[in-house]
Amino acid sequence: MRFEYEGLKKAARKIFEAQPFTPKEAADITDVLLASDLFGIESHGIQRLQMYINFIDENAIKLSNRPELISETPLSALIDCREYMGQVAGIAATDMAVKKAREHGMSIVCVRMSNHFGIAGFYARRMALEGLLGICMTNSEAIMVPTFGKRAMIGTNPIAVAMPAEPYPFFYDAATTVVPRGKLEVYIKNGKPIPDGWGVDSTGKITADPSVVEGCIKTKQGGGILPLGGAGETYGGHKGYGLGVIVELFTAILSGGFTGDIVRSMPNIEGSCQTYIAIDYGMFGDKSSIERSFSDYLSRIRESDRADGETKIYTHGEKEMLAYDDRMANGLVLNEKTAGEVRGLCIRYGLDPDEYMIKK
Amino acid sequence: MRFEYEGLKKAARKIFEAQPFTPKEAADITDVLLASDLFGIESHGIQRLQMYINFIDENAIKLSNRPELISETPLSALIDCREYMGQVAGIAATDMAVKKAREHGMSIVCVRMSNHFGIAGFYARRMALEGLLGICMTNSEAIMVPTFGKRAMIGTNPIAVAMPAEPYPFFYDAATTVVPRGKLEVYIKNGKPIPDGWGVDSTGKITADPSVVEGCIKTKQGGGILPLGGAGETYGGHKGYGLGVIVELFTAILSGGFTGDIVRSMPNIEGSCQTYIAIDYGMFGDKSSIERSFSDYLSRIRESDRADGETKIYTHGEKEMLAYDDRMANGLVLNEKTAGEVRGLCIRYGLDPDEYMIKK
Repeated sequence: MRFEYEGLKKAARKIFEAQPFTPKEAADITDVLLASDLFGIESHGIQRLQMYINFIDENAIKLSNRPELISETPLSALIDCREYMGQVAGIAATDMAVKKAREHGMSIVCVRMSNHFGIAGFYARRMALEGLLGICMTNSEAIMVPTFGKRAMIGTNPIAVAMPAEPYPFFYDAATTVVPRGKLEVYIKNGKPIPDGWGVDSTGKITADPSVVEGCIKTKQGGGILPLGGAGETYGGHKGYGLGVIVELFTAILSGGFTGDIVRSMPNIEGSCQTYIAIDYGMFGDKSSIERSFSDYLSRIRESDRADGETKIYTHGEKEMLAYDDRMANGLVLNEKTAGEVRGLCIRYGLDPDEYMIKK
Repeated sequence: MRFEYEGLKKAARKIFEAQPFTPKEAADITDVLLASDLFGIESHGIQRLQMYINFIDENAIKLSNRPELISETPLSALIDCREYMGQVAGIAATDMAVKKAREHGMSIVCVRMSNHFGIAGFYARRMALEGLLGICMTNSEAIMVPTFGKRAMIGTNPIAVAMPAEPYPFFYDAATTVVPRGKLEVYIKNGKPIPDGWGVDSTGKITADPSVVEGCIKTKQGGGILPLGGAGETYGGHKGYGLGVIVELFTAILSGGFTGDIVRSMPNIEGSCQTYIAIDYGMFGDKSSIERSFSDYLSRIRESDRADGETKIYTHGEKEMLAYDDRMANGLVLNEKTAGEVRGLCIRYGLDPDEYMIKK
């Protein structure tokens, strides 16, 4: 089902304002949420609206707290989110990183005791829209099993990097696991086995059953998703594992927060950590020349010879920009369950669903 | 064959001094080279001594030039290596990055028109030995085929990250390809087929023949090594491909140098690019507490439950430190070919091989 972006945006803002969030906070949170839908990453979009409201209802997101600036240097800041809404700390951290990088050339801002914050790519892209090279990382509840291990010790731990380029801004946002957790849910829903090498059971053996892996993550009794590179070292599983640990280092260790094995291990406390790095590449020369040479390189890759039988080589960000144009023109994609949830939330907060959920 | 470290070190220094390099340069280059052997990464160690001397003989490493500082800000520097020895620019860049990070908190130094520079991990580790979080990346001649492509457009593009920790300093140094090029050579030498998903032939089809992949890289007519994550998108090949592009962005694009598809495409010109980033984590709190919490996390991972049938979970840097202790006690590992080459070079430069190549 397709619904107009503008209507859903207005509804989400009003629902967040009712929690209550300030109008700016509600607008920021909505922007993060709907950016996922616009980029075609529905798993992190408005389908999570109900989850966020549940978290607020259950006090897993603690609206009685406020994020606090713990320490600051000209290039850095450390923020304690104090279990407030992750997106609010995320936008604040991003904007501090941008300001510091503009003034000094580069910056790093870390957030601890945070919550779900949407897609890391949103924040990297926000820096790129300000003419900076943007990096954002987050840890999460442990789902990654280290190479030769059987217990999840490391989060999904995506790395996002964004940089201006034409015609498609470079936008990379990927878990350091072989697949994100959301993929399991898709396979469970479709009743399909997962490819060999995505996940292991509680003995550390590869399994084709996505429910087993998902169950393992929930019960924390062994099993989980494998690192990028898969099982063992033959295909570089130790590399994905190392990248996952590097994300823990940049997020949890630098911020003094919880590592993935501790995140979400206590009732109603998430405590994930995020890190934001901004680099003003004007330190290295004329910014538009640098952007042009990157655009040229990306276009050489896209136009390079395709493997026999393949129709297209993408560069990172291209699919997202194509999805953006499609969603703006034809509406956001909601499945029946999500549409029902949004409708229910509208009613709960006194909004007429038909006014905000405009079918395309 | 095992030879004493000290003897080989003296020989290598004298051979480099004869090129001529200054005594400091010769000592630095030797340190980079032999660190690989000490860490058990023989592919990048003294087995490359003959290659370096050949490059100097052929003027592919141009000793008539000197690296030049192109521009500088308090946090950054841009160096043109001018095809001089990559290690010399690498050490200079690392030491500048350390100094700037010490003064300001973090720094980034880019080098263009460089050459082989040894292992990226050496430089990241050099920063970690100074109490900083160190990052080093390099691009290289294109060997990585983008997802759905058949022509190598991206280098091996390793990312190295090092950080103090006890008892094993964290040391991550890995290509963003599924395997480094050196692995092909090992399989060719042993006459073995490579695992499905390491490389593709000139049509973009997966091949088990390492000679085909190696030939493809040399002739630049299509084919090459796949990204970390393998072929297509099922196992995240698009992630490894994106990480490779990110390394090109940080090295070639920021520095105004050659991207992987241009590196080594002209006779006797390499033109690879490297980037060095240092972060003083003292910006976020007491450094020894941060190191301790990282050490604790790494030890929790090492001590977590092993998959059934596995005997050990490593953290990154552990194998290298174990190799270091072994090589210091029992000597560096040279194969017959390398031992013969070192012997030949000793003779060429008037050194008595038996004085420097002391068998253990």
